[in-house]
Amino acid sequence: MTYTYQRTIHFADTDAAGVVYFANYLSLCHEAYEEALGAAGIDLKNFFSDNGIVIPVAKSAVDYLRPLVCGDKIAITVKPAAVAPDTFTIDYEVTRLARPAGKNAPAPRKLAAVAQTRHVCIRSENRARAELPPALAAWVAAA
Amino acid sequence: MTYTYQRTIHFADTDAAGVVYFANYLSLCHEAYEEALGAAGIDLKNFFSDNGIVIPVAKSAVDYLRPLVCGDKIAITVKPAAVAPDTFTIDYEVTRLARPAGKNAPAPRKLAAVAQTRHVCIRSENRARAELPPALAAWVAAA
Amino acid sequence: MTYTYQRTIHFADTDAAGVVYFANYLSLCHEAYEEALGAAGIDLKNFFSDNGIVIPVAKSAVDYLRPLVCGDKIAITVKPAAVAPDTFTIDYEVTRLARPAGKNAPAPRKLAAVAQTRHVCIRSENRARAELPPALAAWVAAA
Amino acid sequence: MTYTYQRTIHFADTDAAGVVYFANYLSLCHEAYEEALGAAGIDLKNFFSDNGIVIPVAKSAVDYLRPLVCGDKIAITVKPAAVAPDTFTIDYEVTRLARPAGKNAPAPRKLAAVAQTRHVCIRSENRARAELPPALAAWVAAA
Repeated sequence: MTYTYQRTIHFADTDAAGVVYFANYLSLCHEAYEEALGAAGIDLKNFFSDNGIVIPVAKSAVDYLRPLVCGDKIAITVKPAAVAPDTFTIDYEVTRLARPAGKNAPAPRKLAAVAQTRHVCIRSENRARAELPPALAAWVAAA
Repeated sequence: MTYTYQRTIHFADTDAAGVVYFANYLSLCHEAYEEALGAAGIDLKNFFSDNGIVIPVAKSAVDYLRPLVCGDKIAITVKPAAVAPDTFTIDYEVTRLARPAGKNAPAPRKLAAVAQTRHVCIRSENRARAELPPALAAWVAAA
Repeated sequence: MTYTYQRTIHFADTDAAGVVYFANYLSLCHEAYEEALGAAGIDLKNFFSDNGIVIPVAKSAVDYLRPLVCGDKIAITVKPAAVAPDTFTIDYEVTRLARPAGKNAPAPRKLAAVAQTRHVCIRSENRARAELPPALAAWVAAA
Repeated sequence: MTYTYQRTIHFADTDAAGVVYFANYLSLCHEAYEEALGAAGIDLKNFFSDNGIVIPVAKSAVDYLRPLVCGDKIAITVKPAAVAPDTFTIDYEVTRLARPAGKNAPAPRKLAAVAQTRHVCIRSENRARAELPPALAAWVAAA
């Protein structure tokens, strides 16, 4: 089941070109991933601190399709897929929701970016690969 | 009327000490300010770009009372007050909502930080002071 | 000619896992790109604001190879390549410089990440593609 | 002895108003603090992670005097002062260095912001106050 996260673009997300800074799209996607894990009952405090097992991002890729501005409402879909017992990917679609008419012309719903992250589970002491924790493996498998 | 904004602490908010990075409390407060303006019908895209009139933060002050970790639910109250026709302040209280029992012990609701920002309206061409735009002045007065 | 930028990892770059937050590698690479442009005599204030022509990042990709911690010294190489009159890519290598022996064991120089960004020049009014400005085209060609 | 840190404003520091985002001034000041500690021989990796003793920021205050834009060269002075065996403050002055004539008019050196942070040393297990570690106390006393 694909999880969908909704969010408003904040001023802190933007840069001097007036739009969301390109690196911040990855932060938006990671927020959506966190919300998806939280909705699945996974405790974020423990998940993202170093408790012997860590699951860092090994790769990221983003296609930036349309700019986003402060106040835009967005929806991000989060779709994990298993790759191996220690590895999974997540596909994200960042959609700008329709802008109502205000001072600016209204604007329809549009895809703003697509992204993928690849996550590999490792032991933090020696960085050897380890199987995903069961709760996370279940979340990946349920997608 | 005091506006209250709710938010979850994200991984991107934290630093290597395991808690929210101190500068990011100001970003959290600014988000709450933006949400309060949006709820009052003020268009954020135009408000925060440079349209001849800008309303930069002239001062900020934060008291950090308790650390916040990834996954914490917080509520931020936003309380503006008029100072002069071109100036207002906003007081914020950042409260960590009660943590349910999970892997960690449950924790009661606690005040995590208090902050104040001071905002001065100026013309961007010459940085001369200017009266607050009517919609903003109304928002400040209604508080 | 490949440009090399040196930098120390700051506390603000890190997250609660104790290492640089994955999205911030793109910010580090963009800093290196800015420094490379500045070294080539390009005025950054005008380059990165919206003056009718903007050159947003259209794609990014990062391979994260090793974690970086607060205080690490890094070097980033910046290697642009022309793709079309309106498009270029930049390849980055982020290297952790050797850590001297301190409280921790010394550590040799290691590649920490490789990244690529793709940049497309457009007119901001209609988002139609436009040729790269001459100074930028010269910088890309000289690489 | 007052420590001085020099830095260029990066695109990631800015927001859609075209200038450095107000919360990021605190990050700039913290960078300057880190560089001052590093110059005094203090190992940053250990200093800023949680090793039983942590020294969080308890208060911050900033006066924003002038905007800073991408490409601006700045200098930040770092001046610590002892308050108690477990407490010290740091005063910062953020100065924009002179802008040479380019596409824009030249601009003289100007004070852009002043800030203060207050730091309190505590044991992380129970948040009880603790004396500053000797190397840090020496750095504060030498100022």
